[in-house]
Amino acid sequence: MPYDYSPHFRTGLPAAAGRWSGFPRYNFIGGHNDADAVPVDDFVEASQRVLAREGRNLSTYGLSSGPQGYRPLREFLSASLKIRTGMTQDPDDILIVSGSLQALDLVNAVLLEPGDTVIVEEATYQGTLQRFDRLGVNYVAAPLDEDGIRMDTLAHILNELQHKEIAPKYIYTIPTVQNPTGSIMPESRRLELLQLARSFNIPIFEDDCYAELTFDGARPKAIRALDDGGQVIYCGSFSKTIAPALRVGYLAGEWDLISRALAVKYDAGSGALEQMMLAEFCITHFDDHVARMQTVLSEKCDTIMDALNAEFGTAAEFAVPKGGIFIWVTLPDEVDTSSLAQVAIAEGVALNPGAEWSADPESGRHKLRLCFGSPTKEEIQEGVALLADICHRETGIPIRSGNVKRG
Amino acid sequence: MPYDYSPHFRTGLPAAAGRWSGFPRYNFIGGHNDADAVPVDDFVEASQRVLAREGRNLSTYGLSSGPQGYRPLREFLSASLKIRTGMTQDPDDILIVSGSLQALDLVNAVLLEPGDTVIVEEATYQGTLQRFDRLGVNYVAAPLDEDGIRMDTLAHILNELQHKEIAPKYIYTIPTVQNPTGSIMPESRRLELLQLARSFNIPIFEDDCYAELTFDGARPKAIRALDDGGQVIYCGSFSKTIAPALRVGYLAGEWDLISRALAVKYDAGSGALEQMMLAEFCITHFDDHVARMQTVLSEKCDTIMDALNAEFGTAAEFAVPKGGIFIWVTLPDEVDTSSLAQVAIAEGVALNPGAEWSADPESGRHKLRLCFGSPTKEEIQEGVALLADICHRETGIPIRSGNVKRG
Repeated sequence: MPYDYSPHFRTGLPAAAGRWSGFPRYNFIGGHNDADAVPVDDFVEASQRVLAREGRNLSTYGLSSGPQGYRPLREFLSASLKIRTGMTQDPDDILIVSGSLQALDLVNAVLLEPGDTVIVEEATYQGTLQRFDRLGVNYVAAPLDEDGIRMDTLAHILNELQHKEIAPKYIYTIPTVQNPTGSIMPESRRLELLQLARSFNIPIFEDDCYAELTFDGARPKAIRALDDGGQVIYCGSFSKTIAPALRVGYLAGEWDLISRALAVKYDAGSGALEQMMLAEFCITHFDDHVARMQTVLSEKCDTIMDALNAEFGTAAEFAVPKGGIFIWVTLPDEVDTSSLAQVAIAEGVALNPGAEWSADPESGRHKLRLCFGSPTKEEIQEGVALLADICHRETGIPIRSGNVKRG
Repeated sequence: MPYDYSPHFRTGLPAAAGRWSGFPRYNFIGGHNDADAVPVDDFVEASQRVLAREGRNLSTYGLSSGPQGYRPLREFLSASLKIRTGMTQDPDDILIVSGSLQALDLVNAVLLEPGDTVIVEEATYQGTLQRFDRLGVNYVAAPLDEDGIRMDTLAHILNELQHKEIAPKYIYTIPTVQNPTGSIMPESRRLELLQLARSFNIPIFEDDCYAELTFDGARPKAIRALDDGGQVIYCGSFSKTIAPALRVGYLAGEWDLISRALAVKYDAGSGALEQMMLAEFCITHFDDHVARMQTVLSEKCDTIMDALNAEFGTAAEFAVPKGGIFIWVTLPDEVDTSSLAQVAIAEGVALNPGAEWSADPESGRHKLRLCFGSPTKEEIQEGVALLADICHRETGIPIRSGNVKRG
């Protein structure tokens, strides 16, 4: 008779995790990346060099760089953020975290309590919404167009909330390669957003995890770079540019905020070896590697768009992603992608149902997110074809694949 | 005019972190270890080999090993725990975590809610007590003797709680190289503890972070190994045996519990590179390395005991630690070690005041914890001498250093 833990569980616990049974054959979920693009030889060289030079520092928590993370990595970030985003960020005001998820957790731990309200984009990162749900925090959806948050409706929302005496704790935005839509907010709109945030006195939380991966290599200045008032909290990650299994992200902001985030970072530091190897690698290889990733991912994006056009015809609508590793697809209203996802996974095709990526699940019911970073081009083609078959069998959609009517 | 975040902070936030200003000259705090003992060459070789072989897997979250962590590391742990602790633990029921602190956080997230009660050892790990304080969880102190928790008083405490209809959520114990006392609970007492836990139906949380580092290389079976009912949750760490800056620990338990912990592990996995390198290193080098650490630390322990005897004479009382990296020192009642620590740090000597390591701070007021893993033997001697000087100046104690009366 095994011991029964259930009487001891706290209330409101999520369902138990299942046993892991391997990746699905066609894996269109998760922020996985291209296996062939991992710079293995450079990693070997970087880790060898940095370990030989500084390995003995692993004997101390925080390596001799203090609790904010390995200083050479913060120095690299300071320089790189300046060039890439236009941001002036002192290495002393950067906090290295265990993936950008921890950046979300720390900012939430500093700012949020149950019953608080935040503004999110109507379609946004599932992990962020889940965190709000767990914290008992309300979120209000700001509608998007092809340039990100629509400022007219945002102004309306903020006015309405003010009228109800609700002061949102922050505006969460992924302005550069928005997740899941793949859009980029132009600079003019970033300035409008800042203006609104100022007039309503609401901090902006700028999640820039995908920002390096624009397909044309260009991007607007970060919102944080456009703000001389320090009202923007910024996070980024090496998960998408370098490798997601390295759990390294960063939080950049005013010391007033960073010092609070550091005070609630109770983990005795983020993994040092990964920070050391990353710093050593990035100082010499980051720009070249990112340029290569842009090409690799742009080609895969073309592959998945071609496959969607070929297999779903006009039934699959999508905006052309401007970068990143995912595409946001709208199917006809009658398709419930949550049901579709359940059937598809049983046949080896994993996808993100739109409801999970939408502040209002109902609005995402017939949408889906497909990640194209990890599967090969052949797997993308086969997987999308199989998905179209399954979808047609289950819903009668797509009626046509390309120009050919389905039987 | 910088932006003012303070109106947005949630209530009850801890004080902001200060700027890091480097390690103190004589660093007797934190779980730092011996810099010369870091096996740098073996780390270089292990990381080179594992990266060359499996580096491309870094492109996927969880490395193809699933969310429980790198499978070869779990397999190593399963085999090593069997030999070292007597525990039969399937690799599928081990969860790799980002340092044992995350193990605490996950178990707490599964079991605890505000107002709950747990049992702790009267002197125990500060990080655990802080976590309970933050969670609003009450803790009841179980008195210790030289063999760990006293079972007669524990039985009394549990009876009293039962009488008050308080069901403790778990008994937190560090039975093998207790932190901070350095004691080891004998097997007979472990069996008594299990018996009590069973009759009161309370899980045991066995924190075995220092257990490999006994100075004579011997240790009793883990409590979890003595229990065929699955009532014991077990955690361990590589921080003390290998390197603290590698944030890798593990949780071992019944799937009923592990699956719940996994469900509240929202971080997309712990750092993969560190897990990979550790597995590669440990499979061939762990036992030799641990044997070497036992010698290194045993010698440093001798050094600090000699220094305490020489500099504090009879004013410093301590039990001889049976392993680990710290010594728990009792000074005369009139010394307040919290005040002493403040004066000492200004002069470059860092120590842990006993109040912070005691469930009842008042009972630890004249005690202190000194960590001897990181400083060199010379630094230990100089640091203890300086501490004795400072203590004498501030409190008149020690009156004698060794056999010599102080002026």
